[in-house]
Amino acid sequence: MKINDLDNIAILGMGLLGGSLGMAIEKTMHQVTRTGYSRSLSSAEKAKKSGGLDIVCETVPEAVKDAQLVVLCSPLGTFEGLMEAMADHLKPGCIVTDVGSTKVLPRDLAKKILPKHVEFLGSHPMAGSEQQGVDFAMADLFEGANCILTPEKKNKVETLKFLHDFWSTLGMMVCEMTPAVHDKTVAAISHLPQVIAASLMNISKEKQMEICGKGFLDTTRIASGPEGMWRDILMSNAGNVADNIDRMINELSSVRDILRKNDDKKIYNKLGKARAKRSELLKQKLRTRELLS
Amino acid sequence: MKINDLDNIAILGMGLLGGSLGMAIEKTMHQVTRTGYSRSLSSAEKAKKSGGLDIVCETVPEAVKDAQLVVLCSPLGTFEGLMEAMADHLKPGCIVTDVGSTKVLPRDLAKKILPKHVEFLGSHPMAGSEQQGVDFAMADLFEGANCILTPEKKNKVETLKFLHDFWSTLGMMVCEMTPAVHDKTVAAISHLPQVIAASLMNISKEKQMEICGKGFLDTTRIASGPEGMWRDILMSNAGNVADNIDRMINELSSVRDILRKNDDKKIYNKLGKARAKRSELLKQKLRTRELLS
Repeated sequence: MKINDLDNIAILGMGLLGGSLGMAIEKTMHQVTRTGYSRSLSSAEKAKKSGGLDIVCETVPEAVKDAQLVVLCSPLGTFEGLMEAMADHLKPGCIVTDVGSTKVLPRDLAKKILPKHVEFLGSHPMAGSEQQGVDFAMADLFEGANCILTPEKKNKVETLKFLHDFWSTLGMMVCEMTPAVHDKTVAAISHLPQVIAASLMNISKEKQMEICGKGFLDTTRIASGPEGMWRDILMSNAGNVADNIDRMINELSSVRDILRKNDDKKIYNKLGKARAKRSELLKQKLRTRELLS
Repeated sequence: MKINDLDNIAILGMGLLGGSLGMAIEKTMHQVTRTGYSRSLSSAEKAKKSGGLDIVCETVPEAVKDAQLVVLCSPLGTFEGLMEAMADHLKPGCIVTDVGSTKVLPRDLAKKILPKHVEFLGSHPMAGSEQQGVDFAMADLFEGANCILTPEKKNKVETLKFLHDFWSTLGMMVCEMTPAVHDKTVAAISHLPQVIAASLMNISKEKQMEICGKGFLDTTRIASGPEGMWRDILMSNAGNVADNIDRMINELSSVRDILRKNDDKKIYNKLGKARAKRSELLKQKLRTRELLS
């Protein structure tokens, strides 16, 4: 299938991502009929009202039966049930993808549950917010952000090309890696920061936080993310996340030892290295226009 | 001295804070003559040009000789030299304060170096940015932020009142604690986050960061702060910061163990507690209007 042939998409799950996806499709591919299912019917109705969906379905089979593309936009913990509910109702040649934050689990579930006449290829649009729910959906949520596709050998080249075009049309910068490499990567740059932000909140005393500045608030911003979604993400990538926590503990231990030894040169070098690395990172983000969105 | 009697202030150090202080005084107390000294003469000249200073002095004695209030706005590591340079040139009754991020060190230096006929009382305006230098100075940098005064028994009530009025006039919310309590508090809510942000940057791989999202960038924002300033801050509060790093390591170890045991309930509880605490914190910040600035 080519991107221009797409005229029917099913979006399962109507939170921040599902709602934003519907709105973004309307903006960039307005010929596409958007059918939606959500465990919470009122979220789907809200999405329809605000222009995020064309048709609201009360069951999964109904939502997917005419779809050329199905996108799972609900928390990872719901994927198994959704795949089981859709398996017998997908059209031959249908492409199934998801927006889950880990990619080994959805790949394994798809292999186990989905029929041979459909093709699964996972996506990870790295867009979002610490806010949750369809009320915060935005048509431009995906613009300028990265999207990781996680093809494997068995995936067809044209399916990869189709999904590449799909996310690019929504304004995303698309790259590819295997599900295993993806999960190792996001453990380091997304799941570890989440654990760090939550841990810093959890050890901080209310009385002391009363006088905290913007630095503390920024460092802990993502700790305001929904615990159900993040539990699913962390549990589905537990080994990689635990390994990265160990790396962080080692680094913090080394800084603590330097402080206890009053070694101002080593502290200066650590801080200087961090500042230089972040400066390079910001330059790279500006070059790739990510920060212009 | 009452705040309305203030007509001559010396600002020593002309970076982000010194420059912003000059501009803020012009805006709120325009009768005050602002004399400035900076190790970098060009920074002081820049500040004068952009309305942050009235008079630029090339030496410390010249800058402080007529001042009723002296504010040290340079990095903590320069305080000893500045106090030695000013000690013999301060007017009797002059009030000396500083904007340093730790308060035990300035108190100790003042006790050792400054003459008996002046009074030292440390301030910590909790405003700033990861940007450095007078080029980033802003007249409204202090508005809506917290300022901690660190009086001790020997301080006069009227001096405390004077500094309270001074920072309040600049739009700050002023509170008080001893230098020792201050340093313990900021170790937890400011210096620990700084170490965490720098450590997360230092263990992150360039290739992996290429696809990082806004969460990573926010969590590490303060790692872009100047290493010289932060070295001085961390070294002057090393014991307290090391203790807080140990608390963070304990919490991270506990999360790692939970992940290794696949205990999804405990992870959910940790994440939920963090989200709830941050939600309360944001509510408190909105109540005290800090986030409206």
